[in-house]
Amino acid sequence: MIIVLEPNATREQVDRIVQSLEEKGVQIHYSKGVDKTILGLIGGKETLSQLPVERFDGVEKVVPVSEPYKLAGRSFHPEPTRIRVGDVSIGGPDPVVIAGPCSVESEEQILETARSVKDAGGALLRGGAFKPRSSPYSFQGLGEEGLKLLAKAREMTGLPVISEVMDPENLDRVAEYVDILQMGARNMQNFHLLKKVGRMNKPVLLKRGLSATIEEWLMSAEYILSEGNPNVILCERGIRTFETHTRNTLDLNAVPAVKHLSHLPIIVDPSHGTGKWRYVEAMSKAALAAGADGLMVEVHPRPEEAVSDGPQSLTLSNFSAMMEELAAFRPRKQESCKG
Amino acid sequence: MIIVLEPNATREQVDRIVQSLEEKGVQIHYSKGVDKTILGLIGGKETLSQLPVERFDGVEKVVPVSEPYKLAGRSFHPEPTRIRVGDVSIGGPDPVVIAGPCSVESEEQILETARSVKDAGGALLRGGAFKPRSSPYSFQGLGEEGLKLLAKAREMTGLPVISEVMDPENLDRVAEYVDILQMGARNMQNFHLLKKVGRMNKPVLLKRGLSATIEEWLMSAEYILSEGNPNVILCERGIRTFETHTRNTLDLNAVPAVKHLSHLPIIVDPSHGTGKWRYVEAMSKAALAAGADGLMVEVHPRPEEAVSDGPQSLTLSNFSAMMEELAAFRPRKQESCKG
Amino acid sequence: MIIVLEPNATREQVDRIVQSLEEKGVQIHYSKGVDKTILGLIGGKETLSQLPVERFDGVEKVVPVSEPYKLAGRSFHPEPTRIRVGDVSIGGPDPVVIAGPCSVESEEQILETARSVKDAGGALLRGGAFKPRSSPYSFQGLGEEGLKLLAKAREMTGLPVISEVMDPENLDRVAEYVDILQMGARNMQNFHLLKKVGRMNKPVLLKRGLSATIEEWLMSAEYILSEGNPNVILCERGIRTFETHTRNTLDLNAVPAVKHLSHLPIIVDPSHGTGKWRYVEAMSKAALAAGADGLMVEVHPRPEEAVSDGPQSLTLSNFSAMMEELAAFRPRKQESCKG
Amino acid sequence: MIIVLEPNATREQVDRIVQSLEEKGVQIHYSKGVDKTILGLIGGKETLSQLPVERFDGVEKVVPVSEPYKLAGRSFHPEPTRIRVGDVSIGGPDPVVIAGPCSVESEEQILETARSVKDAGGALLRGGAFKPRSSPYSFQGLGEEGLKLLAKAREMTGLPVISEVMDPENLDRVAEYVDILQMGARNMQNFHLLKKVGRMNKPVLLKRGLSATIEEWLMSAEYILSEGNPNVILCERGIRTFETHTRNTLDLNAVPAVKHLSHLPIIVDPSHGTGKWRYVEAMSKAALAAGADGLMVEVHPRPEEAVSDGPQSLTLSNFSAMMEELAAFRPRKQESCKG
Repeated sequence: MIIVLEPNATREQVDRIVQSLEEKGVQIHYSKGVDKTILGLIGGKETLSQLPVERFDGVEKVVPVSEPYKLAGRSFHPEPTRIRVGDVSIGGPDPVVIAGPCSVESEEQILETARSVKDAGGALLRGGAFKPRSSPYSFQGLGEEGLKLLAKAREMTGLPVISEVMDPENLDRVAEYVDILQMGARNMQNFHLLKKVGRMNKPVLLKRGLSATIEEWLMSAEYILSEGNPNVILCERGIRTFETHTRNTLDLNAVPAVKHLSHLPIIVDPSHGTGKWRYVEAMSKAALAAGADGLMVEVHPRPEEAVSDGPQSLTLSNFSAMMEELAAFRPRKQESCKG
Repeated sequence: MIIVLEPNATREQVDRIVQSLEEKGVQIHYSKGVDKTILGLIGGKETLSQLPVERFDGVEKVVPVSEPYKLAGRSFHPEPTRIRVGDVSIGGPDPVVIAGPCSVESEEQILETARSVKDAGGALLRGGAFKPRSSPYSFQGLGEEGLKLLAKAREMTGLPVISEVMDPENLDRVAEYVDILQMGARNMQNFHLLKKVGRMNKPVLLKRGLSATIEEWLMSAEYILSEGNPNVILCERGIRTFETHTRNTLDLNAVPAVKHLSHLPIIVDPSHGTGKWRYVEAMSKAALAAGADGLMVEVHPRPEEAVSDGPQSLTLSNFSAMMEELAAFRPRKQESCKG
Repeated sequence: MIIVLEPNATREQVDRIVQSLEEKGVQIHYSKGVDKTILGLIGGKETLSQLPVERFDGVEKVVPVSEPYKLAGRSFHPEPTRIRVGDVSIGGPDPVVIAGPCSVESEEQILETARSVKDAGGALLRGGAFKPRSSPYSFQGLGEEGLKLLAKAREMTGLPVISEVMDPENLDRVAEYVDILQMGARNMQNFHLLKKVGRMNKPVLLKRGLSATIEEWLMSAEYILSEGNPNVILCERGIRTFETHTRNTLDLNAVPAVKHLSHLPIIVDPSHGTGKWRYVEAMSKAALAAGADGLMVEVHPRPEEAVSDGPQSLTLSNFSAMMEELAAFRPRKQESCKG
Repeated sequence: MIIVLEPNATREQVDRIVQSLEEKGVQIHYSKGVDKTILGLIGGKETLSQLPVERFDGVEKVVPVSEPYKLAGRSFHPEPTRIRVGDVSIGGPDPVVIAGPCSVESEEQILETARSVKDAGGALLRGGAFKPRSSPYSFQGLGEEGLKLLAKAREMTGLPVISEVMDPENLDRVAEYVDILQMGARNMQNFHLLKKVGRMNKPVLLKRGLSATIEEWLMSAEYILSEGNPNVILCERGIRTFETHTRNTLDLNAVPAVKHLSHLPIIVDPSHGTGKWRYVEAMSKAALAAGADGLMVEVHPRPEEAVSDGPQSLTLSNFSAMMEELAAFRPRKQESCKG
């Protein structure tokens, strides 16, 4: 950490800063430049993360030098993490495709979808049972009934299933049914829930928050990792920007960035990322080309009747056509980031 | 709701849309313009909110016409809502000032602060006991011990207290100690928790999410209101933008906007909104001038030793000087929105 | 265009709106819903674009239904536009790569780069002569001398050249030397300059503004098209968001969106889009996979000595390695947007 | 400037960086921390601003320590700058109000408005003659005819006038008529035009760009100052964010920030900042309370007939009522930033 002093900081102010920090075990390098004087702080990282040195008199600003995450960082764990779920490996050489409806709506809907996902080459089945909805008047999901239907679809197809957990009180119940626990974008900084899933023995798919920086996202992964659960899959799903033509702005830059900064696998959700089914195929190809470890795509037998997220859902035949395109396009994942 | 058709929508596509919607009790107005043909949908609001009409073939886009909130809207409740907490009235003619440290750290710290807040004219005491922190390695709050210290400060000064609830499992415990439950920005769309506080018999201060639109914020208030708790106080605390000089961008436009759209009181938190204690006084004045019903300000006896948010905290004497300025400046709230 | 009336709009207010608009040749459909009453306006598009109907008493909001652009839209020109520059075709089946330094710095630098770009399979040479710099103290470009060096590099390699025009007074001079005129992101809404390049007989590459919506970008293209120049190439180069890890947020969603809305070719600049050379290859692949018609990439013989944009420049050998990857990866552009 | 080295930077890499920089006259402080090693660079500021040290092998990131502006900074010019225009002083103890229509439309319109602005206590008259419009089909302004009408209104009322210059070729003509040259938000980084107005002998009002940081805005002021024109007035007019309820997000935080960082006066435009006339009064009060040196407000005799920006324009009677409110509210500007 570096402290930049105010141009008119007094001797007394500087002495007070130095003394206070040295008392806490921090070593200080003093460096007088032409315009600015800076203090380089060495050691005491734990201490410093909790000290508002910015608030000392005479301080103009404070510049962090180290990343705030450890377990999520590449220097801690240089090899890419691979996560096994049944027969599926996420983070390995082959990208995986997770597909299914936004919400589980009925037995017929989820079984029909599961069969198609399986046939088209999808590796996992998604389906929401507890739904975060911005309106209290919107469909809130089938709840445990939805989880049971997912389990039935798994039994029928062999596809592992993933569903969102929104609520610590329900966590054990959701975990009983699913193979991967999904943390939604709106819960990316629900720290209480992060800690709880960090104590589970199940992989966690952590969606990026709507306005979360990549660093904050890795810090939320750190919450899970630091509780002992090493199996975190990151999922880019679009950030909030000024652009309104797309529902969100799918930020594919996050793919090479996460590959550079972290060892965790990253998959991409082009359905939420664009909000328009029309753009899902193009952005799926782009995500894989950028080096993503997989995709999560919304698919519905009859999107125009879906209770949620219809506009961004592919039909079963859209999905199957896209999977063929993807296969032709990119037989296996390539290394995209050598730097 | 209005459906804009694609220029090349076929007769069959239009018939299918019309038939499907009419079956659901929606009445349809057909209106052919020069460039575009539109369908106006009348009735069936509940149905429509759950139907992805955008996904019918032949639809270019869908334009909502009504606001999605009801109970939070001014047309539902034309008079401003006033919320009483002990002797304090929030939403009445006099703005109220809530002040205190980001985190409760020790008995000495909170009692000293409480006394100063009281002396300077503050109406309520804030203090975090359970803290949402982006890093798992940062101080997470004193927990119930912090709540007890807050209660002690209340006993000593008579100031009602407010503290954040992060976790549904802890809600009853927090509610036992505080006079107002605070929902933090990162939990603005924690729908599970919103429903739970909606069933409590305590006022709730609902902070705006970092990237929440005003409409989404009112929808989160709607969650609380629709569960039966009418006492929601909105709190603008800065949104996330590209500007990095300030920690967040305090969006004072939200003050007249909320006054126009809703009957709920709105207060402003210039401490989180700017992240710099230096700008807190200017933005406090601005907030009251814009018509806010109050302020929430971070105050600490020794900000340079605060375990959290020191850079944005006023000292006790900063606070007391600011309160004098505010008194001179604005003896009582004025009507700011007549339109 | 649709007018949504205020719930309490009076008869007189509505009559006044209707009368004023009908006088201007607009036909009106009145449609009373359960919550809201709307007026659908038909005809008089030119008139309406200039009338602040929002400001009539009794109006709650106004919702546009048609796109504001014409010549840039797909319905005006259903076939994709192809633009020929020498032997190169932009917008055809093969994506093109434009490469070169941010700034032309010296004869040696530009000739060495041009040779490498040519050898690696690049189709055009870029190089800035007049540079937009946020600081008046930064290098402002070699000016006409830079243009002469570009022309020399073209003579040597046969590569057509592209360079930015910043200033209407210099336009003719720049046009004398270059094969494509570049309009920079900061000038995307320099309407005076847009009109001027619209009267030139040269293709124009129009970069998206830092905070321009796709619609505004197409409107800026419309300025050029409406002056008679049909040869506009769009260039996505990253938008400004809250994320600071990358210099900008390269918005690849714009690729399928532009393909859907417009007939104009779109290329992608991953160098400015990410600001980090490390991520350029991954995002180049992603751009082509998303369906872009080409790339614009910064390349420099010695990026650590570049006078501008070194951090995002590839070395000559980085570039040549990337071109091999791209060839293996994607022999020819595929149709990415069928919807 | 500080260089943070990669954890695995080699001795040779570091030697190469040090040698290259020392050759250019930069002095280097080497500081090895626990996680990271940093190099503090001293001197050679001009050189460093043009060197992409980020691109040396072994460099993780580069952190600037000094502000990039000089003449615009408070340390260069500690006293606030006051700018005289006729009898009006901008930046002095009394805030000034600039008002008038978005566009000059007719003699009757501008004279009627000018009289009302004068009567209500406005200090300057605004009115657009050359209009930047996002659509080529929208009204582009009356041009020189508009300037003549403004001059006539000045003659009649004694109010100095301000109008926008969009085009370097027109600059002299605009300057002939107006008392203050306005640089619009879309031209904030039109560096060619900035240099030209920097050579004029007229005050310049520089609007903040839609997505400009405060630092970039001050750098654009630096362009004007560094050409010799010391009379720059900054104007906050709203930034672009994700919020769509308001046309822009008026960023009042910029007021205390500019007061802290710079000596230049700052005024606020709540009309563009909100896009809704309804919120103009509240935000005008807030702007003055935050310490702004003045306001720029759109006023029109019949906003529902205005050719541009009607929805955000006050009527003459709205304006006159607001001016009374402002007078009661705040007889004279107070010091808002003591820090």
